Amino acid sequence: MDTPKLRRGLDLVLLTADFAGTLLFAMEGALAGIRGAMDLFGILVLAFTTAVGGGIVRDLLIGATPPASIKDWRYGAIAITGGMLAFVFHGTVAQQASSVLITALDAAGLSLFAIAGATKALEFGMHPMMAVLLGTITGCGGGTIRDIFLNTIPGILRTDIYASAALLGAAVMVISVRALRLHPSLAALAGGISCFVLRMLSVWQGWSLPKIGA
Amino acid sequence: MDTPKLRRGLDLVLLTADFAGTLLFAMEGALAGIRGAMDLFGILVLAFTTAVGGGIVRDLLIGATPPASIKDWRYGAIAITGGMLAFVFHGTVAQQASSVLITALDAAGLSLFAIAGATKALEFGMHPMMAVLLGTITGCGGGTIRDIFLNTIPGILRTDIYASAALLGAAVMVISVRALRLHPSLAALAGGISCFVLRMLSVWQGWSLPKIGA
Amino acid sequence: MDTPKLRRGLDLVLLTADFAGTLLFAMEGALAGIRGAMDLFGILVLAFTTAVGGGIVRDLLIGATPPASIKDWRYGAIAITGGMLAFVFHGTVAQQASSVLITALDAAGLSLFAIAGATKALEFGMHPMMAVLLGTITGCGGGTIRDIFLNTIPGILRTDIYASAALLGAAVMVISVRALRLHPSLAALAGGISCFVLRMLSVWQGWSLPKIGA
Repeated sequence: MDTPKLRRGLDLVLLTADFAGTLLFAMEGALAGIRGAMDLFGILVLAFTTAVGGGIVRDLLIGATPPASIKDWRYGAIAITGGMLAFVFHGTVAQQASSVLITALDAAGLSLFAIAGATKALEFGMHPMMAVLLGTITGCGGGTIRDIFLNTIPGILRTDIYASAALLGAAVMVISVRALRLHPSLAALAGGISCFVLRMLSVWQGWSLPKIGA
Repeated sequence: MDTPKLRRGLDLVLLTADFAGTLLFAMEGALAGIRGAMDLFGILVLAFTTAVGGGIVRDLLIGATPPASIKDWRYGAIAITGGMLAFVFHGTVAQQASSVLITALDAAGLSLFAIAGATKALEFGMHPMMAVLLGTITGCGGGTIRDIFLNTIPGILRTDIYASAALLGAAVMVISVRALRLHPSLAALAGGISCFVLRMLSVWQGWSLPKIGA
Repeated sequence: MDTPKLRRGLDLVLLTADFAGTLLFAMEGALAGIRGAMDLFGILVLAFTTAVGGGIVRDLLIGATPPASIKDWRYGAIAITGGMLAFVFHGTVAQQASSVLITALDAAGLSLFAIAGATKALEFGMHPMMAVLLGTITGCGGGTIRDIFLNTIPGILRTDIYASAALLGAAVMVISVRALRLHPSLAALAGGISCFVLRMLSVWQGWSLPKIGA
């Protein structure tokens, strides 16, 4: 089964998914910029940082410089394309932003980024616990920078099961591959599904984490 | 013409211009700190980050660590001098802050930083498109960090042709040197003039980028 | 006196102090998160960034990647433990937060971080002036990131002798070891005491730095 041809096919699927996630996150960032009364430049900055900010922070922290999305111009091009799409078709994009489809796609993107981030951290020799943290940062870092640019408290710190879903997914992946010795692809699948299911369930059920005095 | 003596002279001119830009940006950062009711320490922090923050972010992103303005103590010394000057002579400095002279000097500093940043990014092997982005970050990154410290939405994301002028200048430089094969000095000159002229024209004419719903 | 056994003992004391400082800063960060209506995830993020953020920024700036607190999982574990303690015992922790004991422990942590940060910067070949700056960043950087996450102007930029105490301590240490040629341990002690005393005196006397128009 594990022929070079299959592997090349799998790599292509993963790269396509990574680019698709980047495009979607960029469009969501751009939309937040439009809502925040940014001009075209600001909208494109938010598209770019939302899409690739998490990966850049991860790469700086694990010492993988220059970060992948600075070295490979295609991420930047996709992010700017996403930003332009959201700018031009903002009416349609805004209408769909909280649809079930977009929520599911966003959850898929979050799962992918969290798993990919934790995997890369393990490859760079990070401790499993830190790999989980770095996977979470990969998934949520871009949105956090976007919220700081918009001068609001990062949403993931106050509401929703979003970062926690990324954390769970990364943890399931790291435990599966390191403690349970599962094949990396299976571990990634288990982690990704955990993140996706927790995120979708929590949106559906309106779950949130405990707070004090709330 | 291209004798070592001439080259040394040109390097000296560039270094002087870089230091002068650092001093000016530091004074503008300090002034923003004074307006934001910062204490002396905060004013010096804003002077430092406004002056060298863009270059530091660029150097971290291209993997040129430690960043130039951390390795070379003179940038820090100049930034703190600028901050102290603005603190002591704040009345005079504040009066001049929106004069034509300061607007022109600031546009010159922006041009210089954008061109120098894009050049360094090319030297570190970045893709031309990313070099344009990194030049823009060099020019505007310091002011963006300053605005985040002041708890406001970064000005460049919402108003004015400022970052866009830096982007244009960096793009003209990169295209001139890579596609048109101009001599680097000529390309830098063309880029710098483009940035300067667009910035000054847009201040004069009150131009701004398109927004949605505005 | 300077036997390997003594040195090992000293290293253990320093490591213990470093871990204790990390725990205390994490609890303070978590408390700020509770006050800011963060959920459990946000509280733990604030605990982590307050405790290790300053050291991470220093390590990125001096090119010591991956940063110590990313490479060594124990810092993260301690920070998260501190955050959980503050979450569970928040009533007791909040009551003690402005007591003389906690103020003194916090001042001790600040002193330790500032001295350790400046020492590491010197070891990485930074100029003495930049080492002082990097020591200050190590002491105050975490709290600055915490304040940005909480969407407030970083406290150290506006009020109190806090960053200035870290700056003084780092400066005394650097001058002692470089200009006065004191033994590094003595220099560290002199610097740490300077920071601690200035901080405690300024809390007691209500000192603050000059401002314009205040």
